[in-house]
Amino acid sequence: MTGARDLSLPREINDPAVIDRAHMFHPGTHLADFASGELPSQIITGGEGIYVTDRDGHRMIDGFAGLWCVNVGYGRTEIADAVHAQMAKLSYYHAYNGNSNEPAIELAGRIAGMIGLDMNHVFYGLSGSDSNETNAKIVWYYHRILGKPEKRKLIARQRSYHGSGVLSGSLTGQPGFHGLFGLPLPEVIHVSAPHHWLDAHPGETERAYSRRLAQELEATILSEGPETVAAFFAEPVVGSGGILPSPEGYWEEVQQVLRRYDVLLVADEVVTGFGRTGAAFGSHLYGIRPDLMALAKGLSSGYLPLSASVVSDRVWQVLEEGTRQNGPFIHGWTYSAHPVCAAAALANLDIIDREGLIENARDTGAYFQQCLREAFGNHPMVGEVRGVGLLAAVDFVEQRSPRQFFDPARRIGAQVTETARRKGLIVRSMPRIDGIGFAPPLTLTRAEADQIVDIARSATQEIAATL
Amino acid sequence: MTGARDLSLPREINDPAVIDRAHMFHPGTHLADFASGELPSQIITGGEGIYVTDRDGHRMIDGFAGLWCVNVGYGRTEIADAVHAQMAKLSYYHAYNGNSNEPAIELAGRIAGMIGLDMNHVFYGLSGSDSNETNAKIVWYYHRILGKPEKRKLIARQRSYHGSGVLSGSLTGQPGFHGLFGLPLPEVIHVSAPHHWLDAHPGETERAYSRRLAQELEATILSEGPETVAAFFAEPVVGSGGILPSPEGYWEEVQQVLRRYDVLLVADEVVTGFGRTGAAFGSHLYGIRPDLMALAKGLSSGYLPLSASVVSDRVWQVLEEGTRQNGPFIHGWTYSAHPVCAAAALANLDIIDREGLIENARDTGAYFQQCLREAFGNHPMVGEVRGVGLLAAVDFVEQRSPRQFFDPARRIGAQVTETARRKGLIVRSMPRIDGIGFAPPLTLTRAEADQIVDIARSATQEIAATL
Repeated sequence: MTGARDLSLPREINDPAVIDRAHMFHPGTHLADFASGELPSQIITGGEGIYVTDRDGHRMIDGFAGLWCVNVGYGRTEIADAVHAQMAKLSYYHAYNGNSNEPAIELAGRIAGMIGLDMNHVFYGLSGSDSNETNAKIVWYYHRILGKPEKRKLIARQRSYHGSGVLSGSLTGQPGFHGLFGLPLPEVIHVSAPHHWLDAHPGETERAYSRRLAQELEATILSEGPETVAAFFAEPVVGSGGILPSPEGYWEEVQQVLRRYDVLLVADEVVTGFGRTGAAFGSHLYGIRPDLMALAKGLSSGYLPLSASVVSDRVWQVLEEGTRQNGPFIHGWTYSAHPVCAAAALANLDIIDREGLIENARDTGAYFQQCLREAFGNHPMVGEVRGVGLLAAVDFVEQRSPRQFFDPARRIGAQVTETARRKGLIVRSMPRIDGIGFAPPLTLTRAEADQIVDIARSATQEIAATL
Repeated sequence: MTGARDLSLPREINDPAVIDRAHMFHPGTHLADFASGELPSQIITGGEGIYVTDRDGHRMIDGFAGLWCVNVGYGRTEIADAVHAQMAKLSYYHAYNGNSNEPAIELAGRIAGMIGLDMNHVFYGLSGSDSNETNAKIVWYYHRILGKPEKRKLIARQRSYHGSGVLSGSLTGQPGFHGLFGLPLPEVIHVSAPHHWLDAHPGETERAYSRRLAQELEATILSEGPETVAAFFAEPVVGSGGILPSPEGYWEEVQQVLRRYDVLLVADEVVTGFGRTGAAFGSHLYGIRPDLMALAKGLSSGYLPLSASVVSDRVWQVLEEGTRQNGPFIHGWTYSAHPVCAAAALANLDIIDREGLIENARDTGAYFQQCLREAFGNHPMVGEVRGVGLLAAVDFVEQRSPRQFFDPARRIGAQVTETARRKGLIVRSMPRIDGIGFAPPLTLTRAEADQIVDIARSATQEIAATL
């Protein structure tokens, strides 16, 4: 028994920080350091606009919108009101066997309308991870119905993030998600992600670099055997692997290869969906025509858990045929199409529409990118500033030319992040780059953009001065 | 674009049923029949107590509590109020790298306190499926840290339900979840689930039957090689595979085998947790000492998505050691420890405590089981009535002795279910039995129990009269 309710125990036993260390198993955390107190307690208690406040009253700009999800900012009472009303009316019902509810229906129509691209069929889940588990199962089912059960292999990219489940974590192209869990599964193969600044040959144009990556993809499909390759999973802009907008020509080249070998394209729009890049979807930005799409985060701005796998008409026809041959499609979650989560998403999309947040991500995003370039572009500790819309990264280097990185053990990006936090700004150091990432709420004003850049630059200067 | 907002279109284009068929990809559904309208539209619009109401105003007793999750019943405004307050205060923050929030902390302490059994560490997810993906990854990490990376195989049971992800769906022991998706993964092995009525030898006692199943488990471990077997996943009461309470001696025998070969025990309490069986947890009911536990459903009564993997102190020590050796535990979900979902769960547990719903599940449950036995025990079309607490099943047979089942193509269980629905009662026909299942809200009164049994019996009579 926890002693939380035993008043005879010392006072600190009721301290949330003590219960936190004793009972909460945090994701992505050094468990021993957190349990021992070496890793500081960071209990967030409030949020309003672009700000969050911790238990000690320290107020910070959340320059990462939670985990790039709070697109409409914190404290939107109209979402809370919509959730309350729906919960009072119908708190839950399942969607199996054709059962349904009004908010989930309305939202499905609305998602299809926003995406266009003949993607009309919305399967609901709770997280980006589960939407990719769903997508993989749809891919396998699709090829099997078409008489190609041997098409099983899934190609993803290094640096990608597609989730943390056993399959979705296998798709993720980051070693930390694999080694200690004995992953990836053998069905998954990784190819290069585009990172022109880091990986292009001297003088190689973006176009030529894109062609080279498409050739690598084609060579991989050929060496694996096209008859065994089922789908290609990719983020329009690589997220936690470094915030990498796609280079010129990349999607044109890649899609030609995929079509040539009947490989389905799954666009993971969990980060990029709902305005983050200044377009409604990354697929719109880059001319991607996906067969399947993964959505989460901005769909509900994180107010409640909600994800979706969106299925193109072309794939859907095969799924319908599959059920004609075999009966029901036996896949789903208890909380698929949760009416309360759908109501939150509808209120969230209302805000995005009414306040023009996609357009703001484009316009204030362009301003923000320009300010970052001005502040960091010539900084001796900065190798590259890149981004699109309200998604940006600054990469640190020990020396610009010839390029030399810091020893990772010096944790430069993490040090800048920690310093910025003390100064009132949350940014994120990335596992695969030595730098800092930005993904603020899409409500950002120019004045707020200035503030973020000022604090980030000041934190960088402070660390630079120690070197 | 969906035409939902174009008023010049025919009226029916704004009909939710039309949008539903055009845009919602329902879980566990015959997609072609739903799209064509052959499968009826069933849009649920409201819920109150044990009742739900559909769009046509048809009010029904929900004898299955959604999907055995709405333990406190529908329409609890105090949960909606708690959700509203939390969402206004802090709508979201992530829990990575030691970040935290107050409701998730309080809930973690409370879950640990309710379970006891030295299970003190709570990892939050959204669904039972993801909690089992997490559990599998913890199991693999655990053995690897202890220097046994070859311990990879996961044993689950036929008839089990552990989820729909690629791994969690592989653990699920039901063929419908496998064939068309090319599952299960090779890491997963299935052994028999206990179903004494169906599978025991003539005259075999429950105790002897349990010993035989434990011997089968041991033989499987030995033939696979104990050095390759990592964990055993099992529901205390098999759920969608037929609602099968465990026979006498089963857990005592099985746990001896698991301990003998260093095989971790994962108790999937997604259905049984939080009072469904009349005990707080199935592990309490049967004397199970799990290494890991999966929780969902009753944790939040389905009001919002929330799950948990609960880790025993013994396993936790190894995880902490793992992070001392290797740094952070790289696993998690954006919505792990969602503050709003945690607030809903706290309000839900307050209701369960205050109204004594676990005790009611035990007491009214015993009454309900007795009424079912009286109504169906001697019915010529009924093979077995079984259950525990507020979890029960009635199995239909064409002939009791010698036992003869109906041709599955006659869909007797499904017909009874459809008839009961027309008469105002939702029960569930199960994929692996020809029968009907009951899992009403834990608020059930004796009068409501009588009503459920009356309608179920009348629906059964109606179908029996057609045979």
